[in-house]
This record gives sequence, C-alpha cells and structure tokens, in this order.
Amino acid sequence: MTPNSPIRPDRIEADIYALAAITEPDRPYTRRAFTPLFLEGRRWLEKAMQDAGAVTQIDAAGNLIGTIPGQRPELGTILLGSHSDTVPDGGRFDGVAGVIAALEVARALRDQGAVLAHTLEIVDFLAEEVSIFGVSCIGSRGISGTQPREWLEREAAGITLEQGIVQVGGEPFKPAQRDDIKAFLELHIEQGPVLQNEQLDVGVVTAIAGITRIEIVVEGRADHAGTTPMGSRKDALTTAAWIALGVEELAKALASGEEHFAATVGEFEMLPNAANVVPARVRMLIDARAELRDDMDRFIDELAKGVAAISEKTGVGATEPRIISDNPPTPCDADVLDVLDAACESAGARHRRMASGAGHDTAWMARIAKAAMIFVPCKDGRSHSPDEFATVDDIALGTAVLLDAVKALDIKLQETI
Amino acid sequence: MTPNSPIRPDRIEADIYALAAITEPDRPYTRRAFTPLFLEGRRWLEKAMQDAGAVTQIDAAGNLIGTIPGQRPELGTILLGSHSDTVPDGGRFDGVAGVIAALEVARALRDQGAVLAHTLEIVDFLAEEVSIFGVSCIGSRGISGTQPREWLEREAAGITLEQGIVQVGGEPFKPAQRDDIKAFLELHIEQGPVLQNEQLDVGVVTAIAGITRIEIVVEGRADHAGTTPMGSRKDALTTAAWIALGVEELAKALASGEEHFAATVGEFEMLPNAANVVPARVRMLIDARAELRDDMDRFIDELAKGVAAISEKTGVGATEPRIISDNPPTPCDADVLDVLDAACESAGARHRRMASGAGHDTAWMARIAKAAMIFVPCKDGRSHSPDEFATVDDIALGTAVLLDAVKALDIKLQETI
Repeated sequence: MTPNSPIRPDRIEADIYALAAITEPDRPYTRRAFTPLFLEGRRWLEKAMQDAGAVTQIDAAGNLIGTIPGQRPELGTILLGSHSDTVPDGGRFDGVAGVIAALEVARALRDQGAVLAHTLEIVDFLAEEVSIFGVSCIGSRGISGTQPREWLEREAAGITLEQGIVQVGGEPFKPAQRDDIKAFLELHIEQGPVLQNEQLDVGVVTAIAGITRIEIVVEGRADHAGTTPMGSRKDALTTAAWIALGVEELAKALASGEEHFAATVGEFEMLPNAANVVPARVRMLIDARAELRDDMDRFIDELAKGVAAISEKTGVGATEPRIISDNPPTPCDADVLDVLDAACESAGARHRRMASGAGHDTAWMARIAKAAMIFVPCKDGRSHSPDEFATVDDIALGTAVLLDAVKALDIKLQETI
Repeated sequence: MTPNSPIRPDRIEADIYALAAITEPDRPYTRRAFTPLFLEGRRWLEKAMQDAGAVTQIDAAGNLIGTIPGQRPELGTILLGSHSDTVPDGGRFDGVAGVIAALEVARALRDQGAVLAHTLEIVDFLAEEVSIFGVSCIGSRGISGTQPREWLEREAAGITLEQGIVQVGGEPFKPAQRDDIKAFLELHIEQGPVLQNEQLDVGVVTAIAGITRIEIVVEGRADHAGTTPMGSRKDALTTAAWIALGVEELAKALASGEEHFAATVGEFEMLPNAANVVPARVRMLIDARAELRDDMDRFIDELAKGVAAISEKTGVGATEPRIISDNPPTPCDADVLDVLDAACESAGARHRRMASGAGHDTAWMARIAKAAMIFVPCKDGRSHSPDEFATVDDIALGTAVLLDAVKALDIKLQETI
C-alpha cells in the first residue's frame, strides 16, 4: 500500500473485531441471518455507515444499504459491499471483510473531501450464506430480481422466509429489483490457498464458477459378509470407490488447464453400514465447479460414461448421474477487470487473475450491473471455520485497490454511458 | 432321502411355521432373546421336547435342554441343537431349522423304538444372535465355560445380563460348564449361496472361520470444495476408496485357494459429509473371515503394508490398521466329519466339505466336545432377512443325515472311549 493512502488499517481492524464480538458466545463465530445477533450486528453496521456519512435504509429485499449521494445522481449508483451473516461456527472475515472494506472506501473518500459523480452505496446483503431457510444469497437475488417467488413460502424455526424478511425490515412483496446500479464491486477473502501459495496480494476475479450438484446411487446387494464368497458379491462400496476415484481423475484432467475446475464427492452415505453385511447401497453427491460451461458439460458427459463403464465391469448397478442443481458460471465484467488490474498496479499490489470456485453475491449482481470482485489472501485457504484468518494489512491493501477502482470507474462509467 | 426314512418332513414343516408365527406381528420374523416372545417360543419348544419324550430343564447358562436318558448314561451325552432366537427382522430358518432337526431326530428314534447307549440331549442355546446386551452365543459360551464373567454386568433395557439370564430361568452365578458332552452336532442353513450354486444337498462344515475386525481411520483436511485446487487437497474419501479396493483385491487373492477367506468394509463413515466440503475423515471397519489363521495373519500384514503405501502415495494420513476383535478359526472334529460324510452317502445327500464364514454355537461347543455341523441350502444365500428361505425337503434330508450320524457316533464314541 502506498504510504500516503487514505485507507486506515486501524479502522478496518477495529470494525472487523467489533463485528466478530457479536457472536454466539460459546460458538464463535456465529451470527446467522434472521437471528437476534444478526440484527444486533446490523444495528452496529447501520451506525458505522451513518458515521461514514451515509443515509441508511433496509431495502425491500432486506439488504442494509448506506447511501452517499453523488454530485450527479442521475448517472446512477456504484455499489460496494458483501454480507455480514456467517455460517454456524464460521469465521470473522468471510463477508465481513468486504462490508468493512466498502465502509472504509466511503470513509477514505470523506477524509479526502471527495464526492463521486455517481451515488455511492455500501451494502450488507441479506443472508448470503445458506440460511435456516436452506437457500443462499437471498438479498442479492432480491435486488437483482432473481429470487424465486416460491422461496418466500419456505419455513424454518416457525416462520416463513417472507416473515423473516419482514422481521429484518424488508418488504418481501414489493419489487426489489434495481435498475440504477451501474457497477458493483465486492472484496472477499479467497477461501482458497492460491494467493498465499503464490505470495500474491490480490486476486482479480474473472468469473464466479458454475456449481453443478450431481447424485449417483450405487445399488448392490446386502449379503452376509462372512458366508458370501468374494466372487458372488454385489458390493456397493467398492463400485462407489471406483466412481469416487473416477471423479477425482476426471476433475484433475479438467483442472490441468488455465481455467478453474474442481469436483468433490462431498456426501457419501452407505447402507446398511453394518460390520457383517456386504454394503448394499451407496449414495454419492458430487459438487462440481467450472469457470467454463464447456468444462462442466464435458465433466457431466464423461462422468456418465465412466459410471456406466464401472457398473458394467463390477456388475453392480449404478443410477445414471442425476443433476440436482445446476448454476452456470458468471463471467465478471471485462471493463471492470481492466480497471481492477490498473488499480492493483497503482496500489502496488501483486496480483493475478483467477476464477472464484465459491459462489458469491457478485454472481447475482452481474445480472443487473457491471460487476467484479477481488480476493485477498487468507491463511491456508481455511474458511467457514473459526480458524479462518486474513491479515489487516492484506485487507487494507485490497481496500486501497477498491478505492482506486471506484474512483476510476466513477470517471470511466461516464465515458461509456 | 431314502423312501423309508423315519424323518417326517410334515412334522418339521409344522414346527418351523409354528415357531415362525411367534413373532412381533408387524416385524416378521422377530423373536429376540430375553423378550416375552422369546419365552413364548421356548414354552412351545419345551412342550414339543416333552412330546418327543424328553425331560426338559433350563440349565444354569439359560439354555433350554431336553434330555432322553441313554441305556448307558455313564457313557456321557450326545448333544444336538441350535438356537431359537432371531435378529430383528430376521428369518424363519436361521437357528430354528437346527433346533427342529434335533427334535425330529429324537422323535424318529422314538418312532423306531430306538434308545441310544449315550444320553441324547436337544438344546436351544440362549441368545446366539447379538442380543440387546451387544454380545452373542451367550448360552453356548456358558455351557462351554468360555463366557467372560464381566459380561453379566452388561446392561440393556434397564436390566443386566445377569438379571436377563435369571428371567429366562438360568442361574448365572452357578457353574454352567459341562464335562459329560462327548459330541455336539448342529444343523444350520448355509446363509451363503455355495450349496445352491453347486446344486448340493449338504455342506459338511470343516471349520468355523475366524473373525477379525479391523478399524482404519483416514485423516484428510476439510477444505472448501469450490476454492481448493485439485492438487492442494487432502481428500479422505479418495484415499479411503483406494483402501477399500485394496481390501477387496487382497481378499480375492486369499480366497482363490481352497480355504474360505472373505473381507468386507462393512462400516464406512465420512465427515463432515457436506456437499461443499472436501472429505476430512473416513472411518472404515473391516470384517475379515479366515478358515486358516495363516491367511488372516497374511491379510493383516499385507493390509498394513498396503495402507501405508496408499497413504504415502496420496499424501493423506491413515492410521495403522487397529484390531478391534480377533477370534481364531475353530476346526471341527475330524472323526465326526468322517461320520458326517458317511451319513451323507447313506442318506443319499450330495455333499461337499466347506468352512462356515459365519459364527455359530458349534465354535464354542468345540472347546468341550467333538463338535461339527452341517449346512443345508438356503435360497440365494439370503439370511437375517424375512426373505430367508430353505425348503422342508432340504431340511428333512439334512435331518436324516443327522439321524444317521447320531446313530453312528453312538457306536463309534464307545469304541474310541
């Protein structure tokens, strides 16, 4: 970070740890959306936004938004932010780092006496993590007009999602989609080891990988483990083992190029799971992530062929891979990526382009705005865990990049409009 | 079966189905040891034994025994039987076929006006299956003096095993070990597919395989499934998959000889088992069965080497295989095997020698008597399931073999004493 940067690491640090203190005391760090602790965190954030000179509101989708009007508000809005909710037993940085970075950009501009031409907004999206209602990115889907209406009927903890949004101050049946947002930027911890391993400061995110979840069920036969000769078995486990290894082999091949690809057998349940019975059934759930849709299509195709070949070889039945959910990759905006690269150079941040293997609010914002995000390094790639860690210096440097990019976009967006 | 055999299939059929009717009505066929239904089954059996001319008693170990005194009781006892308890959702034949066959031998002798020189006893062993107390073969371990004393303190359903034995009529703190039993024979369904596949009538059991249970824990790392590159993972599942396939390969090699060997990964638990997290931990429980102790020793040795090699190759840690329980194989008595082969020939039963992969009361009786058992075919090897099935004709033919063997042993045992 350049020595005369207006970004103040001390403020960033104080804010992150103030929010971290708002947690279930015996289960740090837990501040799940729709809980009283979440609302307590938001009251703290609301005040911080106001202290930064923003006018705050909860929008119809339940997002907390701080607005700093621009000199030419008719140009539209530049939106910065992330989310303040956590998973259970989560960390202090996932989401929070991006909300606080947005806040610090606003404070730095105010400290410099700078007012953008565009209106600047800071956002804390509602429920980015999978919430008690079993779905994620509720706020960014709302603001981008991509939230399925039927989600409002989902029930958890005795209330519907509709009631949950009302409780946080939203108006779930009012239109929430915005058309004035010209650009959206999000800072986030990487949640992976790449920046640390390559000793880089910032990842400029080219795309949010698509996520496809695929179920395979292997159907063997529950024979007596002692009396059934090895040659007379239909062992679901060993067939499932070949499939798990096939998934890994396919994923490694697809990941060998430049573009991000990963596949994981994350769920694996075996029945009857009794010491003296040959495994009868295994259900596997595969999580596959691809920067390129072509890679995902190839994976799905090769997987189906591989499973059929394994099943034929072992003589144990396996269902055709069934797609449970399928979200395509979202490329980030090419112009904004160029702005971010230049901002890295100007802030002195060692940077690379990379895809995000994880889902983010940015993927939904890209539907209605020029959107992109940057990653800052996190220790050993750990996330969704109390061990999650990022240094204040790294977050501050990322925030300086964000500030520079916002200033550049404020000009560039006027040119391109 | 020879046309003039005194064995009556109609009586065997009626008895098996009478006992099958004593079941939890909505969960056929369930008659677990220590339950009121088990005691109801035993009252039925007690009367059937008395009708066959036997004097009945519950011995100190809780076994139901019917005694038909011999002409020369000082020669000792020939004991026949099996068990009447079932697993939950079990079948009609496992255990029961052997108890009813023993009963039918006694009735056939009576019908022929024959009284053995030895005393003949029919036994229904207490709790051969894993009971609510978590252990098996309680009655045969009692009568053979091999029941660990501390088992009596085991608790389940609000009582101790000691109290359970008292409830069925036993006297758990009295010595139960017998020294007068000269021979023990058990008929049982095979619980495997070998006799059916080879179209044979009787298996003459050479040994009860040893059972060794081995635990392996694979310790990977719970990384984000989307953001962690394929090359940076420590995936516990794929390492466990290699181990499961290694177990199968080793077992197939050891099973390729004449002697029985089988190994199964029967339990497989993965953590955290979440779609978007790289598997962090897998616990596997291996059930290995060997007719020869040498084979088991080789398996344990090769397994340890294989696991270490896999762990080194994948870079994911795995514990050294840990032996959880280890019961050595029990050979059946060579003299009795010859008698059984001859009895098969004389009854016209197509027969082969084979080891039992499953545990049986015979394994414990072999500690105090010349013991052996015969198998009769069962459909598709199914057992411990309501689908378990054996034909009355097959059971009757096995019973005829048993009758012939008992008569032969009654003479042969006098010669060898």
